[in-house]
Amino acid sequence: MRVVVLSGGIGGGRFCVGMVEAAGPERLTVVGNVGDDVDVLGLHVSPDLDSVLYALAGLSDEVRGWGRADETWNALETAAALGGESWFRLGDRDIGLHLVRADALRRGEPLSAVTARLAAALGVRSRILPATDDRLRTFVAVAGGELAFQEWFVGRQHRDETLGVRFEGADAARPAPGVGEALAAADLIVVAPSNPYISILPILAVAEIRAALERRRVPCVAVSPLIGGKAIKGPAADMLRALAGGAEPAHVAGCYPGLVDALVIDDADAAAAAAVEALGVRAVVVPTLMRDAAARRALADAVLALA
Amino acid sequence: MRVVVLSGGIGGGRFCVGMVEAAGPERLTVVGNVGDDVDVLGLHVSPDLDSVLYALAGLSDEVRGWGRADETWNALETAAALGGESWFRLGDRDIGLHLVRADALRRGEPLSAVTARLAAALGVRSRILPATDDRLRTFVAVAGGELAFQEWFVGRQHRDETLGVRFEGADAARPAPGVGEALAAADLIVVAPSNPYISILPILAVAEIRAALERRRVPCVAVSPLIGGKAIKGPAADMLRALAGGAEPAHVAGCYPGLVDALVIDDADAAAAAAVEALGVRAVVVPTLMRDAAARRALADAVLALA
Repeated sequence: MRVVVLSGGIGGGRFCVGMVEAAGPERLTVVGNVGDDVDVLGLHVSPDLDSVLYALAGLSDEVRGWGRADETWNALETAAALGGESWFRLGDRDIGLHLVRADALRRGEPLSAVTARLAAALGVRSRILPATDDRLRTFVAVAGGELAFQEWFVGRQHRDETLGVRFEGADAARPAPGVGEALAAADLIVVAPSNPYISILPILAVAEIRAALERRRVPCVAVSPLIGGKAIKGPAADMLRALAGGAEPAHVAGCYPGLVDALVIDDADAAAAAAVEALGVRAVVVPTLMRDAAARRALADAVLALA
Repeated sequence: MRVVVLSGGIGGGRFCVGMVEAAGPERLTVVGNVGDDVDVLGLHVSPDLDSVLYALAGLSDEVRGWGRADETWNALETAAALGGESWFRLGDRDIGLHLVRADALRRGEPLSAVTARLAAALGVRSRILPATDDRLRTFVAVAGGELAFQEWFVGRQHRDETLGVRFEGADAARPAPGVGEALAAADLIVVAPSNPYISILPILAVAEIRAALERRRVPCVAVSPLIGGKAIKGPAADMLRALAGGAEPAHVAGCYPGLVDALVIDDADAAAAAAVEALGVRAVVVPTLMRDAAARRALADAVLALA
């Protein structure tokens, strides 16, 4: 069974690991968000693509929860001492990857091609595709103005209430090579348990990707990133309350109108199933907390069972 | 006494440390070679400027003989694993500096301004000036063609015999801001014990710098990089033999016709003094091996005594 997962970073990456185990690596194509890409110290950083890459390569730091394991911080520490940017945490091994990618991009290699090379070099057998090779950047509206995504997310620790999101460049963005083909050939399309507004909607902001989901002939299943009205990490619940009026599974389903056939929700949210189904979306209640490899795998199996 | 030192990297940096102690840091201006600057992984690396900077900041790795002390290599190791360039050894702390500089240069800041900021951030009280802010690159002619400097020096470990050197961009290069003023205000000009062909002549290839030395009204003293016909490190002796017909102090003096008043040579080369003086250059025989802080300081004192 060929599976395409639309994914953000940390939670999405972890989910994809389970999906690799459940479906087999060659059956999985991950379409990753690039709206949170950022230029730091002249390096092109793709946090979500890298989180998926590190997760599938087995290189993630599971304790810290982001970035690479066995990391050191000497380059950034030096840059900071020399007056360089240091607000965005980049470890030395992570910088090694960013150097290779930034250099390739400056030479004109598309992001999708660099990403494929990096994945191959790290032994990843699934395909990791950026949603687009074009420039697409998320901006977050807050009281008093608009912030570039990472300025809000990392720089201000997403403490400003969100008034809206905007995906600069989305109008002109084309899907990266392979994305349309993967969606057309998929037996199952999955929306990872990622933040709808800042991980998934920037992917769906690429018109051809959204259109591919709209005309799908196979099931599209989303996994709710909420457990008991809370996100495991990050501002998903806060954003849903601010932008959708609440942080219930139905608000997640409401982010994907006409695009998903089923929403996988956690046992803790079983009572919210009816509100999801009232939207015409099947609610599937299973444990969704990926606390260990077995739980991760069980979630992926439950999703595959919906194909 | 105001001193300007024209300097290459390792030996020059070490010499400048002695000169700071002998003359006082505020009295010293170092004009550094940029002919061996190189772009690696999209980073602008200025090996000679950095060697001087690290030496004066007390950050040099004295055991390895180049780069920063307490260095790690995780970024480059990662880049190599991902198919990136790794022929030019860059440590993580070193990369932190290169990231700050490359980013500033891409934003249009001149190399001299970045260098001043880096030196200030590292507490260096002497001035470190690149010979020029313009692009000037050393190429080495070898049998069968020409190699970019670092391709020859690091990439091929300078094993190809040198047929000549060329300084691309020298014709159009202007001295960096402050270089002309420093030379005009100097009480003593010193050519560090660096390789004439690849460290000093690229500086003198900037016409206005050469002209400033030609019209000097103060002594210009060169320190021979040879001890007993050998260089402490690097290809100076080989290059002198190939390009000047021998590796004696007189061949060093011959690299600077009309530009130096005295050549400091090592005790081991005392017998070669007459040949130097036959060129109209005073030969000053002292110990030149900077084996420790005391020897470094004594050499600087001997040079200052020639003012």
